[in-house]
Amino acid sequence: MTLRPLQRYLPVLDWGRGYGRSALTSDLIAAAIVTIMLIPQSLAYALLAGLPPETGLYASIAPIVLYAVFGTSRALAVGPVAVVSLMTAAAIGDVAEAGTAGYAAAALTLAALSGGMLLLMGVFRLGFLANFLSHPVIAGFITASGVLIAASQLRHILGIEAHGHTLPEILLSLAAHLPQANLATLAIGVAATGFLFWVRKGLKPLLRSLGLGPRLADIAARAGPVAAVAATTAAVWLGGLDASGVAIVGEVPQALPPLTVPAATPELIRALAIPALLISVIGFVESISVAQTLAAKKRQRIDPDQELIGLGAANLGAALTGGFPVTGGFSRSVVNYDAGAETPAAGAFTAAGLAIAALALTPLIHYLPKATLAATIIVAVLSLVDFSILRRAWGYSKADFSAVAATILLTLGFGVEAGVSAGVILSVALFLYKTSRPHIAEVGLVPGTQHFRNINRHKVLTDPGLLTIRIDESLYFANARYLEDFLLDRIVADPALRDVVLMCSAVNEIDMSALESLEAINARLADMGLTLHLSEVKGPVMDRLQRTHFLDALTGKVFLSQYDAYRRLAGRVRAAE
Amino acid sequence: MTLRPLQRYLPVLDWGRGYGRSALTSDLIAAAIVTIMLIPQSLAYALLAGLPPETGLYASIAPIVLYAVFGTSRALAVGPVAVVSLMTAAAIGDVAEAGTAGYAAAALTLAALSGGMLLLMGVFRLGFLANFLSHPVIAGFITASGVLIAASQLRHILGIEAHGHTLPEILLSLAAHLPQANLATLAIGVAATGFLFWVRKGLKPLLRSLGLGPRLADIAARAGPVAAVAATTAAVWLGGLDASGVAIVGEVPQALPPLTVPAATPELIRALAIPALLISVIGFVESISVAQTLAAKKRQRIDPDQELIGLGAANLGAALTGGFPVTGGFSRSVVNYDAGAETPAAGAFTAAGLAIAALALTPLIHYLPKATLAATIIVAVLSLVDFSILRRAWGYSKADFSAVAATILLTLGFGVEAGVSAGVILSVALFLYKTSRPHIAEVGLVPGTQHFRNINRHKVLTDPGLLTIRIDESLYFANARYLEDFLLDRIVADPALRDVVLMCSAVNEIDMSALESLEAINARLADMGLTLHLSEVKGPVMDRLQRTHFLDALTGKVFLSQYDAYRRLAGRVRAAE
Repeated sequence: MTLRPLQRYLPVLDWGRGYGRSALTSDLIAAAIVTIMLIPQSLAYALLAGLPPETGLYASIAPIVLYAVFGTSRALAVGPVAVVSLMTAAAIGDVAEAGTAGYAAAALTLAALSGGMLLLMGVFRLGFLANFLSHPVIAGFITASGVLIAASQLRHILGIEAHGHTLPEILLSLAAHLPQANLATLAIGVAATGFLFWVRKGLKPLLRSLGLGPRLADIAARAGPVAAVAATTAAVWLGGLDASGVAIVGEVPQALPPLTVPAATPELIRALAIPALLISVIGFVESISVAQTLAAKKRQRIDPDQELIGLGAANLGAALTGGFPVTGGFSRSVVNYDAGAETPAAGAFTAAGLAIAALALTPLIHYLPKATLAATIIVAVLSLVDFSILRRAWGYSKADFSAVAATILLTLGFGVEAGVSAGVILSVALFLYKTSRPHIAEVGLVPGTQHFRNINRHKVLTDPGLLTIRIDESLYFANARYLEDFLLDRIVADPALRDVVLMCSAVNEIDMSALESLEAINARLADMGLTLHLSEVKGPVMDRLQRTHFLDALTGKVFLSQYDAYRRLAGRVRAAE
Repeated sequence: MTLRPLQRYLPVLDWGRGYGRSALTSDLIAAAIVTIMLIPQSLAYALLAGLPPETGLYASIAPIVLYAVFGTSRALAVGPVAVVSLMTAAAIGDVAEAGTAGYAAAALTLAALSGGMLLLMGVFRLGFLANFLSHPVIAGFITASGVLIAASQLRHILGIEAHGHTLPEILLSLAAHLPQANLATLAIGVAATGFLFWVRKGLKPLLRSLGLGPRLADIAARAGPVAAVAATTAAVWLGGLDASGVAIVGEVPQALPPLTVPAATPELIRALAIPALLISVIGFVESISVAQTLAAKKRQRIDPDQELIGLGAANLGAALTGGFPVTGGFSRSVVNYDAGAETPAAGAFTAAGLAIAALALTPLIHYLPKATLAATIIVAVLSLVDFSILRRAWGYSKADFSAVAATILLTLGFGVEAGVSAGVILSVALFLYKTSRPHIAEVGLVPGTQHFRNINRHKVLTDPGLLTIRIDESLYFANARYLEDFLLDRIVADPALRDVVLMCSAVNEIDMSALESLEAINARLADMGLTLHLSEVKGPVMDRLQRTHFLDALTGKVFLSQYDAYRRLAGRVRAAE
């Protein structure tokens, strides 16, 4: 990169210089569309996190602006998202009672911790750590989280109390409180859910068939939640349904985001550190996937380490303005992109729109039923639920299947933190296990060529006094002894052998443990009267071996090609016979 | 393996059938020599573990017999060893006061836990787990342990009290108590240490120059500790030095090993579980290295999983007969082998010899000064200390150096458990880091051949519209995004490109995450108007890809060889120009 340091840390300097009227128009239109979509979504995710509705708006204002300054994606929209809101509820539910001041304060601390971690990871360029979340683990985690979220929102549809952060807890709690279900709430909830599903599946084709353009039809379909909010709010207000027990949003302060200072007691930090780390990594992975997908469409590039800084700033902003942990969301970013946003300024305009909403529109949502918000959450997250990942993983690789299955089961049964941790640990452990038992083939010469192939798969020439082994993996400490065992087992069983060749064409590295294993193999073969040779050693591996005494101690030779080795050694045995 | 199951679990059935007079004679001679060497060594390691001296003898009797029944090595001698005794002291020092009944009871529990874990690992064939201890980590750990052990024994040489499980603790404690040093003890300790060093370095050459055969000279040199024990015991007894403050072994019960039942309270098990696991793994690694070295010399094979069962049985035996954790020791096994032991029966005879010693000889060691035992420990462990591993690792690979340095520093500074755990975690982390950033080369055609080499190292032919990338690593979740980033960065910078080829000759596996990354790369290149091709995909990888929709979605082709790809694609671009 040839950018000056200031521009590296402040991408706004890059795109801000060329900002003109045409980009301004596009950005303003996109911002207006996104603002309308974000109002119900922000309120709903605050409900999911167990926080007052206005915190959802607050969490969308400062973070969007800060991301616009520090982030590298031109289309990413930052704010509360479903999975991170669920993780927030799980994390702070462990340290405070929902609805208390301590609960909201813990949400601020969680956002501050997460923001700090993301910033540090960005400054130390640790973005690669997110790569250890494998795709199957992420897919399993998102699916299981979607189920958990939908289950947790059923209480609002039924108008009952229910608690829990695991599927069995939630279902048992729902069953216990089912007799208290409120019929008016249920009617609103079911109607809203049904309407929103229809909007998602049926409205767009209908509008298209009525002659609307595809982009307009899409935008109209995305305004579905706003319509549901308006209709059910009006119904409750006009019908006085809040008096018959329909839970409503109620009084929402009519104000700009407050300035807040997150609590930083040692106990709170200790209790929230691991959840904050998991939220940071999961949020980063979700955000970067969206950002890269959108950037690739315009041949733009995302800098993952700078993205960490952008998301870190956004979370610190959320912590200082009464919000909760945020990240780049899929649906809002896609809407932003589709609506034609050209620069991060669109985000700043969206923030302005939401600030106006927080100042002026909150009285309008006094009678908004919580069941409607729950319905928007359920419809949104069920589109994330995709158990077909289990079938696909099973068909592709048993190791990937184990990682997905463990992630799903543990997330549902023991909560989001246990699920994602187990998924990461299991996939790393399976990878280490696989590389610790590499594919090792005994090879022979394909007649009429200079190629060597597996003796079990091909008709090849071999020599009774010569054993050639090809190792399909770099040699390192975890598989060094495996090679030793394999070789010695093979050799002890065959007293006719005189020469052993290790064909190293797929060995990209030999670490010190593997070097010592090779020395041991060499010495043990010498004890048995056998000679060890190497062939097709790669340049960098050879450079490193030449800095050691191994090549002096090697009883045999290093052959440039396996064919050279075969010609020399097979001939030697024949000559000796 | 075609053995019947009973013989697999009871190797004694295998070698026992052919046992005859010649093997009996060899085994008896070896047993006599090993017994003489083991008496002072067993007493010394009990002292190191903080236990009464007789427990060292007990820990050598039942375990040897049980290993003879279940183990697969013909020469391995099982009993207390230096590193495991140090780890025992560290582990039970945390749960009980040295010298109390609780301390000895905790040692039994530790041996029982370790035995149970080894047995389970053997039954579930988990011997491969020990491979995750890399050679540099083991070397660093042994060196640092040797320093810790030697430092911890200085208190016996000085005749003072001193405590601690880390080097700073031990040195500070020694310094604080230095004024109380006992001169008579110091004289004995220094004399014994000097004598034993001379025996090790100077006696054997002297005996050889006096005309003694090499084997006899070796055995005489190994009897050095016995001579030191006899001489210093006599000196204390005759000079009445115990009255002037020389600490002696004192009353030792004259009895066979007692039958003991290890305590199994939940708190004790919780406190000792991790130390027991570390002791099991370290002990297993030490033992199997010795066993394999000796077996290879006679073209015998060691079954690592059966070795776990043998060592597990030995440790359970130690727990039931008043001992402490044991493993196969290097020095005693080499003596056993050199003295001509042919079968595990030699071990059984050694056990009989030690039982006689426990019954009849313990009154003779009443006046044995602890300083002499400390001297034998110091001389034995200093031969294990080898800081040159640091220099060798530095010269070979910085990753290996980091692992060794961290292991040594943390072992010395924070104790054996912290040291070995940090070493394992760091080496796994470094391996994961390395594979997460694989070597990726842009390649071109070497003129006049069909070979493709790195464009930065060789003069090769390339085509402005064609980019060929060779990845020198299997593709898996941790490096999937790295490839994506590398490719997209490279492509965004070069608007002339039309075709991209991934050359997969060193890709031994593509996991599901990497498959999804390839799908994303394919889709993003398509968004940019570029075509993606693969070349030289290995058979098993291709089989797996064919079970997916990837090959249908691939915008380009899969070429059997990179040369085919170049011929077709470079031509296509030229034709289009």
